[in-house]
Amino acid sequence: MTNILLINPNTTKSITDLVLRTAKGFASKGTRLRALTGSFGPRYIASRASYAIASHAALDAYANDRGAKDVVVLACFGDPGLAALKEVSPVPVVGMADASILQACAIGNRFSIVTGGERWKSMLEEFVASHGLTSRLASVRTVAPTGADIARNPKAAMELLAKGCSACVREDGADVVILGGAGLAGLAAKLKPMVDAPLLDGVACAISMAEGLALQEPAKATHGALAKPGAVDSIKLSKGLSKLLQSP
Amino acid sequence: MTNILLINPNTTKSITDLVLRTAKGFASKGTRLRALTGSFGPRYIASRASYAIASHAALDAYANDRGAKDVVVLACFGDPGLAALKEVSPVPVVGMADASILQACAIGNRFSIVTGGERWKSMLEEFVASHGLTSRLASVRTVAPTGADIARNPKAAMELLAKGCSACVREDGADVVILGGAGLAGLAAKLKPMVDAPLLDGVACAISMAEGLALQEPAKATHGALAKPGAVDSIKLSKGLSKLLQSP
Amino acid sequence: MTNILLINPNTTKSITDLVLRTAKGFASKGTRLRALTGSFGPRYIASRASYAIASHAALDAYANDRGAKDVVVLACFGDPGLAALKEVSPVPVVGMADASILQACAIGNRFSIVTGGERWKSMLEEFVASHGLTSRLASVRTVAPTGADIARNPKAAMELLAKGCSACVREDGADVVILGGAGLAGLAAKLKPMVDAPLLDGVACAISMAEGLALQEPAKATHGALAKPGAVDSIKLSKGLSKLLQSP
Amino acid sequence: MTNILLINPNTTKSITDLVLRTAKGFASKGTRLRALTGSFGPRYIASRASYAIASHAALDAYANDRGAKDVVVLACFGDPGLAALKEVSPVPVVGMADASILQACAIGNRFSIVTGGERWKSMLEEFVASHGLTSRLASVRTVAPTGADIARNPKAAMELLAKGCSACVREDGADVVILGGAGLAGLAAKLKPMVDAPLLDGVACAISMAEGLALQEPAKATHGALAKPGAVDSIKLSKGLSKLLQSP
Amino acid sequence: MTNILLINPNTTKSITDLVLRTAKGFASKGTRLRALTGSFGPRYIASRASYAIASHAALDAYANDRGAKDVVVLACFGDPGLAALKEVSPVPVVGMADASILQACAIGNRFSIVTGGERWKSMLEEFVASHGLTSRLASVRTVAPTGADIARNPKAAMELLAKGCSACVREDGADVVILGGAGLAGLAAKLKPMVDAPLLDGVACAISMAEGLALQEPAKATHGALAKPGAVDSIKLSKGLSKLLQSP
Amino acid sequence: MTNILLINPNTTKSITDLVLRTAKGFASKGTRLRALTGSFGPRYIASRASYAIASHAALDAYANDRGAKDVVVLACFGDPGLAALKEVSPVPVVGMADASILQACAIGNRFSIVTGGERWKSMLEEFVASHGLTSRLASVRTVAPTGADIARNPKAAMELLAKGCSACVREDGADVVILGGAGLAGLAAKLKPMVDAPLLDGVACAISMAEGLALQEPAKATHGALAKPGAVDSIKLSKGLSKLLQSP
Repeated sequence: MTNILLINPNTTKSITDLVLRTAKGFASKGTRLRALTGSFGPRYIASRASYAIASHAALDAYANDRGAKDVVVLACFGDPGLAALKEVSPVPVVGMADASILQACAIGNRFSIVTGGERWKSMLEEFVASHGLTSRLASVRTVAPTGADIARNPKAAMELLAKGCSACVREDGADVVILGGAGLAGLAAKLKPMVDAPLLDGVACAISMAEGLALQEPAKATHGALAKPGAVDSIKLSKGLSKLLQSP
Repeated sequence: MTNILLINPNTTKSITDLVLRTAKGFASKGTRLRALTGSFGPRYIASRASYAIASHAALDAYANDRGAKDVVVLACFGDPGLAALKEVSPVPVVGMADASILQACAIGNRFSIVTGGERWKSMLEEFVASHGLTSRLASVRTVAPTGADIARNPKAAMELLAKGCSACVREDGADVVILGGAGLAGLAAKLKPMVDAPLLDGVACAISMAEGLALQEPAKATHGALAKPGAVDSIKLSKGLSKLLQSP
Repeated sequence: MTNILLINPNTTKSITDLVLRTAKGFASKGTRLRALTGSFGPRYIASRASYAIASHAALDAYANDRGAKDVVVLACFGDPGLAALKEVSPVPVVGMADASILQACAIGNRFSIVTGGERWKSMLEEFVASHGLTSRLASVRTVAPTGADIARNPKAAMELLAKGCSACVREDGADVVILGGAGLAGLAAKLKPMVDAPLLDGVACAISMAEGLALQEPAKATHGALAKPGAVDSIKLSKGLSKLLQSP
Repeated sequence: MTNILLINPNTTKSITDLVLRTAKGFASKGTRLRALTGSFGPRYIASRASYAIASHAALDAYANDRGAKDVVVLACFGDPGLAALKEVSPVPVVGMADASILQACAIGNRFSIVTGGERWKSMLEEFVASHGLTSRLASVRTVAPTGADIARNPKAAMELLAKGCSACVREDGADVVILGGAGLAGLAAKLKPMVDAPLLDGVACAISMAEGLALQEPAKATHGALAKPGAVDSIKLSKGLSKLLQSP
Repeated sequence: MTNILLINPNTTKSITDLVLRTAKGFASKGTRLRALTGSFGPRYIASRASYAIASHAALDAYANDRGAKDVVVLACFGDPGLAALKEVSPVPVVGMADASILQACAIGNRFSIVTGGERWKSMLEEFVASHGLTSRLASVRTVAPTGADIARNPKAAMELLAKGCSACVREDGADVVILGGAGLAGLAAKLKPMVDAPLLDGVACAISMAEGLALQEPAKATHGALAKPGAVDSIKLSKGLSKLLQSP
Repeated sequence: MTNILLINPNTTKSITDLVLRTAKGFASKGTRLRALTGSFGPRYIASRASYAIASHAALDAYANDRGAKDVVVLACFGDPGLAALKEVSPVPVVGMADASILQACAIGNRFSIVTGGERWKSMLEEFVASHGLTSRLASVRTVAPTGADIARNPKAAMELLAKGCSACVREDGADVVILGGAGLAGLAAKLKPMVDAPLLDGVACAISMAEGLALQEPAKATHGALAKPGAVDSIKLSKGLSKLLQSP
């Protein structure tokens, strides 16, 4: 039995529910899933400012959770708070963007990301660069329709997405394309016949990476960059987070 | 039900059996495993010359296999023939070194590899570099005892390994260490208490990456670097491989 | 007249005061300085977890400030929240670590950083890498004594610091050394005779970079990665930050 | 009181005068400026051949100067002779291109350069690469009108420049644009309303970087790459330069 | 007297003859040339699968040769088996692609490759990357006509090639262009007047690099990555190769 | 018949003679060699200041030469003026350091340089970096004895050199070592038995690279970074150089 804790660092419960539902579709039989939603901050994350707040919110949600967990999945494509969570958590923490990128690298030499939100293009390019993977990135394209667009005119939305994915393959040289973002969860399977290269689903990648890491039950680092940090006092934080900082 | 085909590109059946046995320990319930052994070439791979032959042998084994498979695992830490297999296979192909490195990157910023065979140090450094991941590599250390050493004096062998892994963490700055190579399969769990950072098992990484990719059933590329290549005639190859080249 | 707003993203007022005092010593005559302290979060920043919270606190402090400012200085060596502040602020935002690194690059080919707090070594190495400057980094050494150490035995503390700086030059190949962190502000001048290469003071670098940028009054980007982001609703944030997100 | 020595390494006195005049407009009150012109070599620098001669001329001008100086500014966008001057000078030496690039990096992730002279495109790309900053460079565009063009039809010239700067932002992804070259000094302020991102003036960047470094009075390196070199005899050089080489 | 052994790792004797003939045209007077053809494998190499087999075939040809040789030239543009041959051979081994790229680097900062076979574009890009030379690569263009095309309509074929080469210079920024592949051997001289930058012939580059290295008679490494590897048993290999692995 | 023009950019005729003599020993029968000495500047090049002057001197020597030449060799290990000469010369220009590094890359993955003059360590590291080859560099060691040392106690000098070369192989991981600098010309052959990896002689590399490029008679670029630059007036230069700048 593997317990996965999903943390959605934005404050929109319906997105948490959608990701949880999608995640269940990809999880193994022996996996139990729970999900938390950020208790403060922006409704969605589409800027560096939102991202900074969401990093705190993700950590806060983690710190106030008392449930069992064998692995944590940070369920926002862009992974705000990932390094902080890795530092304090005794169990592995998987970022949705990070897991997708790494699984894409297992398939081909160069990957592209298709997602929504214009500002994510530069944010994800910098994310990939800060992970040392720029030479593997073919492109980030933010051509995705919104959830509302998909609901209103599914066929047009799918065609738009397929066009974006195909451009990644034919113009940008991608060997594999990642559909990132909760709003696009589950679409990879439907888009397959319309695209010239393998498509990966961000939620699926995160779940299987989490299950894979949990299986090995890797020990917590007791030395180096990701060992538990020293204790520090704080003010005006939630009870759980304050306590986590004091005895990490 | 996921069918994994393991290909051991060297010609030592007992190593194939060991890897298969270890892999079964890490596989999910719904996974069926089969394994092939190279039909020609060196007994083990520990040089660039052996590696070149094993790339051919891996491809040959694949080409002559008629069994069902949803994903292929190249079961030699160093992945001879990986790019060739990815090109011709309609299902995903996972290299043991590649999968381990990518899962290690999901855990921490910098990883080390501990394996046996002095020549593998430079070969794996070049492997990592050719995958664009040099900035994530802390070190490769080839301090591993042989299978015979382990059998003769298990405690001394384990201490030697633990010392090598700890040096990766304390001297080289690794956040996570990979135990690579069939001979070390399964030891990560036992070494845990003796090392200051998470350890990953190469076989476990390959199996969970394979299951994760198979789950998504990614389509075969029909365009670009990993689409099926053009047909080509050949001479003096095995029947299966000759046919594969003619109608890939 | 240039108005500089200093933001100390931790919650220790005495550190804010120290940085402000030091900054005044380096500022031009025509410069007016004000300083804010984080209103929530850790007492100091020495971990990725603290850093994530401080990024939010820095943004929060900025959002709730109504005073005049021509340039903002993020007064924590490591720059939590820098990208978020650059995105929302109409005037330039200068990070103390970023400014120091760039001024060091103006002096020599390779720089080192000497600072306090063991965890900052990996955090600053990743900071430098994410700014694309790894090839210019000779080393980060966290050999600095604490403020208490300096007060107790100034001579021993200075010798310890000088030894660390000299090791950067003689062992790591640095052409120039940065003394980072508020606790070390002003010491560069005193350490000069004991070190074989130029030393830079983090506070001095930040102030002069801020004055230099303010002088040119560069326009706010209206396109691209650092233009104002789209509006987004939020919950349970401070009034100022909530408003900033709604009309950035 | 800070004494800045400007060195124009080409042999056109009117360019020296223009740069000096512009520099005075950006300098602090407590700054005194002097300027030297190359005593031999090409009238302007727009090729690798001219650049090689100008490196010598810059060093020669420095060697024959007896005036007080707290910092030296190499007043040619491209910085011929910068490394040589840093080596021999006891006070900091600031290159105009180098300072501009570093200040641009303080504003945004990726910068572009707009300058005149077709050959400078490759020369500046190589300059940026040799400083390890290629990942920060969005583009170099040599679309600038000549001084004569600007005089003849100022409006058309400004529109041409604005178009080039905008292309850097909208097509090349620059977060910030540098106007390099003496001929464009002072135009950044006027072009602001026509461009979607901050513009930096090369002369302003050099002056404020010089003042900032002079303020800290960094010591001369006595070890390593930029310490004074060993003495060497020479023939047929100017008296000042010959003497400098003999007792550096 | 320098003895060069050419190894064509594909199985088409007429290509071997063509390369040998061309090579003789570029060789010095004191050079004697012999050539081997792969004894098994694909007729030509234009995929990763063919490449893997050809690496083995190149090694096999070498292992079964008893003739005198002072240097080995791997006569396939893409160099399958190069690292393996370098490891086992006591004399230098020169790859045709490798030699061409390095000679191109001696001429200019950025080079392009024009060759035939669509799949080679990604294969050569990865080849250049794995040699750490991506920053020197302007482009790979696979616009080359086939040998049959050239025979049928030489003028059209030459125009097509010239157009491809010119695009490398004018669109991709190449300072120098390599004509790679046996089918294009000798055409560089004819295309000269139609192209704006120097052209290099792959065969000529390989021959002169081989002669240059042979001249110095560099010793075989006895330590490190390219020293002779340890002995290993094997099965079902040719007699020569089996023996080479057993006593390398 | 190939005419090679050697340019020694320092002003010591005896070094020119030594290089010329050594070069003749490595040249092919059909090669004619001439050599020029810098007419002004330092006696030898061992600092950035000397280097800047020597770049001018190399260009000046070239500009005033009226003899026939099919290729130019810049005969100083470090190549001052190389880019300038490539720009103006209609025939190929080969730098001694550049040629050596590229030939070393043809032999192994990672090379080291052993040379004299402490300052050359950082200068050559920067040289390699600016050529994009840092990932291929194992180390630069400046352990070489002077010519006087070699004359006084040849055996001790050879042992010192052998020790330095061996350290490159055993401690720094070099696959191949370059003996750079005129003073070490010809010693590689003698040191062979004492070193564990191939040694290359800088002069030999330059001569064979020059002969190889001359053989192909590559056309002068008429477009791009290395095409002839535009004309420019100048003052107080030698007649030949002034004329070259005016009609390049």
